[in-house]
Amino acid sequence: KFYSVGVIPGDGIGPEVMKEGLKALQALEKIHGGVSFDIHSYNWNCDYYKKNGRMMPENGLDILAEHDVILLGAIGAPGVPDYVSVWELILPIRRRFQQYVNMRPAKLLRGMVSPLRYKEHADLDFVIVRENTEGEYSDMGGRLHRGTPYEIAIQNNVFTRFGTERIIRYAFSLAEESGKSRVIGATKSNGINHSMPFWDEIFKEIGQHYPHMETNLYHIDALAAYFISKPETFDVVVASNLFGDILTDLGAAIVGGLGLAPSGNINPEKEYPSMFEPIHGSAPDIAGKGIANPIAQIWSISMMMDHLGHRDLGRLLLEAIEDVLEEGSIRTPDIGGSATTLQLGDAIINRMIEK
Amino acid sequence: KFYSVGVIPGDGIGPEVMKEGLKALQALEKIHGGVSFDIHSYNWNCDYYKKNGRMMPENGLDILAEHDVILLGAIGAPGVPDYVSVWELILPIRRRFQQYVNMRPAKLLRGMVSPLRYKEHADLDFVIVRENTEGEYSDMGGRLHRGTPYEIAIQNNVFTRFGTERIIRYAFSLAEESGKSRVIGATKSNGINHSMPFWDEIFKEIGQHYPHMETNLYHIDALAAYFISKPETFDVVVASNLFGDILTDLGAAIVGGLGLAPSGNINPEKEYPSMFEPIHGSAPDIAGKGIANPIAQIWSISMMMDHLGHRDLGRLLLEAIEDVLEEGSIRTPDIGGSATTLQLGDAIINRMIEK
Ligand SMILES: CC(C)[C@H](C(=O)O)[C@@H](O)C(=O)O
Ligand SMILES: CC(C)[C@H](C(=O)O)[C@@H](O)C(=O)O
Repeated sequence: KFYSVGVIPGDGIGPEVMKEGLKALQALEKIHGGVSFDIHSYNWNCDYYKKNGRMMPENGLDILAEHDVILLGAIGAPGVPDYVSVWELILPIRRRFQQYVNMRPAKLLRGMVSPLRYKEHADLDFVIVRENTEGEYSDMGGRLHRGTPYEIAIQNNVFTRFGTERIIRYAFSLAEESGKSRVIGATKSNGINHSMPFWDEIFKEIGQHYPHMETNLYHIDALAAYFISKPETFDVVVASNLFGDILTDLGAAIVGGLGLAPSGNINPEKEYPSMFEPIHGSAPDIAGKGIANPIAQIWSISMMMDHLGHRDLGRLLLEAIEDVLEEGSIRTPDIGGSATTLQLGDAIINRMIEK
Repeated sequence: KFYSVGVIPGDGIGPEVMKEGLKALQALEKIHGGVSFDIHSYNWNCDYYKKNGRMMPENGLDILAEHDVILLGAIGAPGVPDYVSVWELILPIRRRFQQYVNMRPAKLLRGMVSPLRYKEHADLDFVIVRENTEGEYSDMGGRLHRGTPYEIAIQNNVFTRFGTERIIRYAFSLAEESGKSRVIGATKSNGINHSMPFWDEIFKEIGQHYPHMETNLYHIDALAAYFISKPETFDVVVASNLFGDILTDLGAAIVGGLGLAPSGNINPEKEYPSMFEPIHGSAPDIAGKGIANPIAQIWSISMMMDHLGHRDLGRLLLEAIEDVLEEGSIRTPDIGGSATTLQLGDAIINRMIEK
């Protein structure tokens, strides 16, 4: 099978880790004669913005729409406001392509030790399903009386039944398909009294169609604390855009850091391309040093293989990562070693080829 | 000095832990001849609501206004929607009395071990200053097209310059007074594009008046992860209402749990009474068993003593808690023992009297 892949390496460490990711793709082609990837790279990033006054060309989304999948490195650079890079590149892609599921595993890989003192591997293996198109990330709102003592800013959180139902439904069906028994919804209906009670109602409505599933709504504050105190109780956690954003970074932290954490921005209907990206940012502080951890990027490609239906290849890639972590001698500084991005990337790819 | 104290024991474990708290107050009177507390208890809780259709009498706030300080246990019971108990009791108190600072220490007590594998006592000692009157907790918003597929809910986050300035200013002056050198602001201006950029601007404006202070704005997702990976870098963290809510539960989790975590809802100008309460809820699952941890409540009273200007008594109380934890034989189940609420309360009070 032939796949057209749109690649946006991005800023900072983005291109560094993407390079290893693309090597992994090539290796997959060699290993499995039946898949091939046609790579198209786009230099849409903060440099592009500085030159052109925009993050991507006017027809950027149309160009991306032609691909089967999209790979993103990381976006963001000093001197360019975050909201530019985010609101003109990442968010339009997530929205235009109805990538309403942001799927982020919180899984402790073999070879890694959790920073949580009392937790073992079996305790840390769940998935966070984050709403990815609406909610707290809406550009509705504004400011009044700028610069005066009476200035106010209002930001609207917008929750639609359509958007809320589809993400919660996805979480339940994911749990069912993967043989999990618990679905937890993140809420804050005790403090946030319009949007979150609405979220709760829909969660309960949909939960009723899964009577064999154990379900619960936890307030986001308590839920964040439970990630520390009882992560072993989670199978699938479903959350709004903002809550999911927070929980997934926290999920990454309890399994050993952002250098490892992958994500899929998924359009489950496959009507539009899905996008796979590390959770980490462009990390300007270590950019150019060649020491960024490429695992989040490579694991994102493993998720991409799952999405494309090649679960065997997805598993192969993830196992190669785990083997190298378990062997332990080749690690980037963020996970306690002194290897370079290139060395760790090579080790994973070689391990994959050996298998 | 004579203090009038309004006490709302509340629901569930609230009255159980409050009992120990009040014993501690009495002991303080005995130890320090110069302070005395006039206690007025109010049965405003979910039972009261079930009987009277409201959480407190119509003139409840006027009654509370007469006290110097307020002590709260915990509020919330099965069968009464959270938003009732919260929106008709806790939030009106916080707002009417301009308790715009919600102060919550994240401090690992002597005798406790952090659930973070690599962190020691010195690593876990900072304060979270949470905005407590506006922001994401606003009842502005509503729902449209109820029950149809087109239903939407909109929730407005409302940030005023007045409200944002005063909380950030408080955080900086607290850092200065307590000899700390770093103030971190929690933001999400990359995703939330009206309210959070406004927050950032004000943070930077105020920060300029503290040129010797190290300051930074971290996005809430990264910040939550840093609570796990590098809590030792924090002195004072200032956050909006919702972000502060999440961060403080997380802060409680990394120092050993909600059973220990105190808070002060503070009106710094002392124009109105401040309110002190544990961060934990009413915990219906363990209510009535006599095993709730009274430390959060007793530590809240220690914060109350600080607020009243009796720092020596505040310290005495906190040291008694730490001595008992360090001795280790008397602990409630949540922190690994089998003592009752009463036994742990007595141990702390006896220890205080001994000192
Ligand atoms: C009960 C709830 C509304 C409250 C809050 O979110 O403020 C609680 O979680 C707290 O932190 O005091
Ligand atoms: C860059 C930022 C807007 C983004 C988000 O919050 O969605 C990032 O944190 C993420 O999690 O993908």
